[in-house]
Amino acid sequence: MRHAVILAGGWGERLWPLSTRERPKQLLSLVGDCALVRQTLERVRNLVSMESALVMTGATLREAISRELPEIPSERVVGEPVGRNTAPAIALAASLVVREDPDAVLFVLPADHVVREPKAFSDALTLAAEAAEVERALVTLGIEPTRPETEYGYILTGPASSLPGVHHVERFVEKPDAATAGAYVEDGHYLWNSGMFVWRADRFLKEVEHRIPEVWNALQRVEAEPRDQDFNDVLAAYYDACPSVSVDYGIMEAASDVLVVPASFGWDDVGAWSAMPRIWPVDEAGNAARGETIVLDSSGCVIDSESGIVAVLGVDDLVVVRTADATLVCPKSRARDVREIVRALRERTV
Amino acid sequence: MRHAVILAGGWGERLWPLSTRERPKQLLSLVGDCALVRQTLERVRNLVSMESALVMTGATLREAISRELPEIPSERVVGEPVGRNTAPAIALAASLVVREDPDAVLFVLPADHVVREPKAFSDALTLAAEAAEVERALVTLGIEPTRPETEYGYILTGPASSLPGVHHVERFVEKPDAATAGAYVEDGHYLWNSGMFVWRADRFLKEVEHRIPEVWNALQRVEAEPRDQDFNDVLAAYYDACPSVSVDYGIMEAASDVLVVPASFGWDDVGAWSAMPRIWPVDEAGNAARGETIVLDSSGCVIDSESGIVAVLGVDDLVVVRTADATLVCPKSRARDVREIVRALRERTV
Repeated sequence: MRHAVILAGGWGERLWPLSTRERPKQLLSLVGDCALVRQTLERVRNLVSMESALVMTGATLREAISRELPEIPSERVVGEPVGRNTAPAIALAASLVVREDPDAVLFVLPADHVVREPKAFSDALTLAAEAAEVERALVTLGIEPTRPETEYGYILTGPASSLPGVHHVERFVEKPDAATAGAYVEDGHYLWNSGMFVWRADRFLKEVEHRIPEVWNALQRVEAEPRDQDFNDVLAAYYDACPSVSVDYGIMEAASDVLVVPASFGWDDVGAWSAMPRIWPVDEAGNAARGETIVLDSSGCVIDSESGIVAVLGVDDLVVVRTADATLVCPKSRARDVREIVRALRERTV
Repeated sequence: MRHAVILAGGWGERLWPLSTRERPKQLLSLVGDCALVRQTLERVRNLVSMESALVMTGATLREAISRELPEIPSERVVGEPVGRNTAPAIALAASLVVREDPDAVLFVLPADHVVREPKAFSDALTLAAEAAEVERALVTLGIEPTRPETEYGYILTGPASSLPGVHHVERFVEKPDAATAGAYVEDGHYLWNSGMFVWRADRFLKEVEHRIPEVWNALQRVEAEPRDQDFNDVLAAYYDACPSVSVDYGIMEAASDVLVVPASFGWDDVGAWSAMPRIWPVDEAGNAARGETIVLDSSGCVIDSESGIVAVLGVDDLVVVRTADATLVCPKSRARDVREIVRALRERTV
C-alpha cells in the first residue's frame, strides 16, 4: 500500500516575522487559503489513506498540526523532541509503517512547499510509486529548472530506465554558484532536487542500515522496546541516539540505483521572501503585495501586511513584512539572510 | 506685558504614521520626555504668565491640548473650526489679547519645534521683546544656518539696529534650491526663517488692517459681537470670512521696519523623518533608532518603533517607522513626500 509521510519539522526562519517557532511556515497559508501542511495533505488525498498517513514534526508543534489535520489520527502526528534533520525522521517513519505494512511504499513530502499544478504532481508521484514498486529503487522527484537558481541542489540525470518517464540519477550536486547554475540550466540534463522521495519502506531501511548505522542502531532499540512503553520516552531515546543528518547527504548522494522522475508541476520551496513574486500576483511595476498596503513610486518589492497598513514610497527590490509583533525590512537580495535577524533576536532574549 | 501665543494648528503629516490627525506632531514627544507643545510652553514659563497665554489649535484638538496644558485656562485654548494658515490665527489672538492689555507684546511660537538650548532661546526672545517694545517693530527670530537647507525660507539681514544684537531685515526669501542655499550659508548674511515672531499686538493689528483687509474686516465683526455671544459661533463666522494666508506671505514679506534677532539655540522644525539624525542619538553607522529595533548591515537609517520590533538588514538611508496601526518605509531623501502617502490613504477612505 502507498502511504504519505509528511515532513513538518523546522519552522522556516527565513520567513520571519510571519513565520515563527509558534506559528511556523507549514502552518501559514502563503498561497491559497489554507495552511501549507494542509495543502500538502490535500494533494495526496486521492493517492493514500488518511488513516495511514504519518506526520513528523517538532514536539511543540504536535497539537497545532493535529488541529490543522484532524483526519490524521493524532497518534500518527509524531513530535520530535529535538530536530535531527530528515534522515532520522524518515527512518523512524519507515520503521513505524513497515510494522503495519511490510510492502509499504512511502511518499516522503515536505510540508511547506507550493505546488501549483496538483494534477501533474499527482501523476509524477504515481509514476514514482510504480518505479519504487517495480524496480525496488529509491526514487526522487526532479523539477525541470526554470531559472539558474543557486539556492537549490541539482540532480544530473543519467540514462532512461526501463519505465518510460523515469531516469537513472547520475549524481546529486550541491547548490551551485550563479555561473554553474546557468550552465546546468543550459545543459538540460540537470533537475532541481525537490526533497520529495518515493520508496519502499523496507528498501529505505536497508539503506539506513548500511549507510547510517547510528540511526539503524537507534531504530533497533526502538524495535526492542515493549509495545506498551510510553512512546514519548521511546522517541526521546531514539532522537538522543541519532546524529543530525539529512537524507540527501546520508543516503541519496551515496546510494546506487537511485531513479528520478523529471517533472514540472509549478513547484516552489518558498524558501525566502524573495520567492513571493513567483507565487503572488505582481503589479505592473513588479511589486508582489498582500494585505493592506500603499505602494508609491516603488518597484520589484515584496510587501506583506498581516496587521495594519504598510506604506512604501520610492523604494525598489525591498522586502517589507509587517505582522502584529514585528516589521522586517531588507533588500530582496538579502532575503536569505533573515536568519541573521532571528539569531540576533534569540541572542537578545537569552 | 508679555504674552505667549502658541500656534498649535496642523498635524505634521510628513511625520505620518507616528503623527496623525488624532495625535498630531505637537502632541508627540519626538525628543525629550513630553509633548512638543508642552516643551514649547515650558520654554517661556519664566517669560510670560500662564494665565494669559493663548493657544490657537484645531477645534478637534482643543480637548487634547487642554489636557496637555492644564495650567492654561481652557477658554484660552482656541479651537479653529477650519485651518486658515497663520495670519488669521495670530490676528485673532492679537485682538483677544489687546482687549485685556492694550500694551501687550506677543511671543508667537509654533508648538512643534525643537529647541536644544532653552537658555539661549530665552535670551533671544527677551532681546526680541525689547526691540518690539522700544522700536515698536515687527521682530522675528532668525536662526544662524548650519547647513544649506532647502526646506526653510531665509532672511537676508540688513544693517544693525540701534539695539545691540538686533538687525534690520533686508528681505525674506523663499525656500532656495541647493546651490542657492549653499551660497546663502557661504555669504553669512542669511538666516533661517524660524516662524517665531515678537511684536506689540496693536502694531501687528495695524499691519493686518493695511495688508490683509479681509482678515481685518472679519476681526471687526468679532469685535462688534456682543460679549455674551456663543464664542463658537463667533469663531465660525470669523474663520469663514478669512482667507487662508500665512503671516510670512501676508505681513512679513511686505512690511517695512522688520527687525530680526540672529540667534543659535539648537533650533529644528523637525519637519520630516529625515530630521531625526539631528535630534536623536546616532550609532557609528549613522543610524538614528528609537524603540525596539534590530539594525544589521545598515547605515544612515531613521528607525522608529512605537510598538513591536522593527528589524532592518542591509539597507542604507532608509526611513522605517512602525506604529500600532501602520509601517512606513521610504528613502530619507523622500521623507518630505510622505504626504503623498497621507493623500493616498485619504483617497482610499473617502
